[in-house]
Amino acid sequence: MEIFIQSKKREELIDITSMVEEKIKISNGIVNLFVPHATAAITINENADPNLPLDISSFLKEKVKKGIWLHDRIDNNADAHIKSTLIGPSITIPVSNKKLLLGTWQNIFFCEFDGPRKRKIIITEVKNEA
Amino acid sequence: MEIFIQSKKREELIDITSMVEEKIKISNGIVNLFVPHATAAITINENADPNLPLDISSFLKEKVKKGIWLHDRIDNNADAHIKSTLIGPSITIPVSNKKLLLGTWQNIFFCEFDGPRKRKIIITEVKNEA
Amino acid sequence: MEIFIQSKKREELIDITSMVEEKIKISNGIVNLFVPHATAAITINENADPNLPLDISSFLKEKVKKGIWLHDRIDNNADAHIKSTLIGPSITIPVSNKKLLLGTWQNIFFCEFDGPRKRKIIITEVKNEA
Repeated sequence: MEIFIQSKKREELIDITSMVEEKIKISNGIVNLFVPHATAAITINENADPNLPLDISSFLKEKVKKGIWLHDRIDNNADAHIKSTLIGPSITIPVSNKKLLLGTWQNIFFCEFDGPRKRKIIITEVKNEA
Repeated sequence: MEIFIQSKKREELIDITSMVEEKIKISNGIVNLFVPHATAAITINENADPNLPLDISSFLKEKVKKGIWLHDRIDNNADAHIKSTLIGPSITIPVSNKKLLLGTWQNIFFCEFDGPRKRKIIITEVKNEA
Repeated sequence: MEIFIQSKKREELIDITSMVEEKIKISNGIVNLFVPHATAAITINENADPNLPLDISSFLKEKVKKGIWLHDRIDNNADAHIKSTLIGPSITIPVSNKKLLLGTWQNIFFCEFDGPRKRKIIITEVKNEA
């Protein structure tokens, strides 16, 4: 199963929680979300305050400088690659009674670091047969 | 399956290895540990030297400043949210013969970034039927 | 299943993609890669430009200073432990038709932070029986 999204900025966090929830078919087990891109990532955090995803982007922008890396001689996006490795392209979430066991303040975010681009998230469910 | 813990400080790493080990029921497969909180995380590192979890807390405290973020206007804990995304709320560990395949120097730590609070870790096992 | 590698430097990223691909036996599901070491990690990024893994090592070296931590009094490698927690020792990748669903620009890297050493990666497959 796959989800497709279109990012609109170079760097942004996009809430994909409801898109993932719609895909869940198993009753109990785990779901793995995998981003097949080396300049993007996936994370979980709060979205009740829309400023929080902006803060996360700002933090990464400040810590990983742009334009100072060896790879920038070939393709000016080394910072996006480093951010991808820091946050990671894969996350696994438990499922119970067909629902993601996210906490009250947890949403799933696709992290764009080199947009705007069309992006994909691969969803893989594995049943837990007790 | 769930584990409950009570953190005692705002920021601390709490070794939960033995609590997780007690819950393992499968013979072979993987176990996913998931923290349903947006101001906490889970990691694996050494606990032979009790100074090491303190060093990890110090590193994060130094890198993620407190009180300078947009979200701090609403709830003064943006630093805790950013740390949660940096370390991550989910980790998956292989199991063989009913034992976690942790290395000699690896322990599992719950990472508290906005305590003291009562916290939960969700444990999900998935069998590997070869 | 296990892969063994020998790192040659204190800090380096070693591409293990083909070694992992050779081990895949399941048709569909997920594969978990786990590094049972507290001074190493695993990540996914681009290897088309060999400078990119060097940039990632440089970034971590710059951000996590050496020799200033409490743990350094016992064993002079606290920086390696902190890097291990930042990048993480575990990654889960989807498998379809016996192939890893990596993106075009994604390779799997073992991250050495305290080499040279002989190191192990544990590979655990879990089938997705739809």
